[in-house]
Amino acid sequence: MTVRGGLFITMEGGEGAGKTTLISLLEGKLGQIGRETVITREPGGIPIAEAIREVILNKDNTAMDARTEALLYAAARRQHLVEKVMPALNRGAVVLCDRFVDSSLAYQGHARGLGVEDVWNINRFATEGCMPDLTLYLDIDPEDGLRRIKANEEREVNRLDLESLDFHRRVQEGYRIVAAKFPERFLSLDASLDPQELLDRAWRLLQNKL
Amino acid sequence: MTVRGGLFITMEGGEGAGKTTLISLLEGKLGQIGRETVITREPGGIPIAEAIREVILNKDNTAMDARTEALLYAAARRQHLVEKVMPALNRGAVVLCDRFVDSSLAYQGHARGLGVEDVWNINRFATEGCMPDLTLYLDIDPEDGLRRIKANEEREVNRLDLESLDFHRRVQEGYRIVAAKFPERFLSLDASLDPQELLDRAWRLLQNKL
Repeated sequence: MTVRGGLFITMEGGEGAGKTTLISLLEGKLGQIGRETVITREPGGIPIAEAIREVILNKDNTAMDARTEALLYAAARRQHLVEKVMPALNRGAVVLCDRFVDSSLAYQGHARGLGVEDVWNINRFATEGCMPDLTLYLDIDPEDGLRRIKANEEREVNRLDLESLDFHRRVQEGYRIVAAKFPERFLSLDASLDPQELLDRAWRLLQNKL
Repeated sequence: MTVRGGLFITMEGGEGAGKTTLISLLEGKLGQIGRETVITREPGGIPIAEAIREVILNKDNTAMDARTEALLYAAARRQHLVEKVMPALNRGAVVLCDRFVDSSLAYQGHARGLGVEDVWNINRFATEGCMPDLTLYLDIDPEDGLRRIKANEEREVNRLDLESLDFHRRVQEGYRIVAAKFPERFLSLDASLDPQELLDRAWRLLQNKL
């Protein structure tokens, strides 16, 4: 998977870090300079990836093993990449993707204990070298993140929101391992910054890649 | 995944090699000596694995990428292993499984061109060291195999049966690569032998492991 002229940006961070807000602000900025922008997140409306996601989330599937789950996420990721991300990159678009490989590494590899290297191996197979040009990581103190989630009445509470504080601390630790593993693309931003300041910094990092 | 007292036997081979017949004859032999025997094949009636299989086989999913498919097979394999194979081995049973990792290596890794090593990597993650104690490979000339399939009116024709002779030759080549990779457990049997002779040889190999 090598032909690509666009720019592949992923957004990462713990719960309540503000990824959705920042993506939408960056989309506005990209629109102002006339760049085609595709906002997406797995499974991205791809029927096969949606079907895989249903298997993962089906509440009847209580016996789901953690490795089965990791392989299913990698399968859905692959299909989303092939059907949606790559075609957009190949026509020159900027793709802003909410979570990607690094989430699997931080959550399943580190926080759930499967091993960052082992989860990276199956995701290397899934991505076949199609990795982000830039990953913006919103670093938030786990306690602050959970406080923000509880204060946000519009947000639908998901499975991850309900995990313990200790789990969210391990996720943050996992992201630090990822940062050390991919220093050339993985850039951290302080999520506690004033929103305008955060946008300015993110936009400068993104512009460097345009 | 380390506790196990049973014996894990897998059966491999191209289409029409006679795996089903040999498994059923070996089951009879094991019954005669009073060993609990579990006959299985993926997805093995495990609801999560069946749900994954449905995604793979759904004819509407025409855009399925080969790597997505390989990850889905590995996910279904993992769940079947955790829910059915390991519990049986842990209580001391002999498990006879029709196809396992080696099929993915020969069919997807070699014949479909994904690469034997790459497909092995994701399956290593799925199996977590739970590999067969013995694999009986029924080696058949692809032309003979296809001739047998056509002559067998009771057999329901599947997707693989419809592949070209050239594809089935590549599968055979793939199994030779697998044989060289796992010489300690992967043993070849000449599928053109007289059925009784074939059973005797298979039974001797199996008895060595009991």
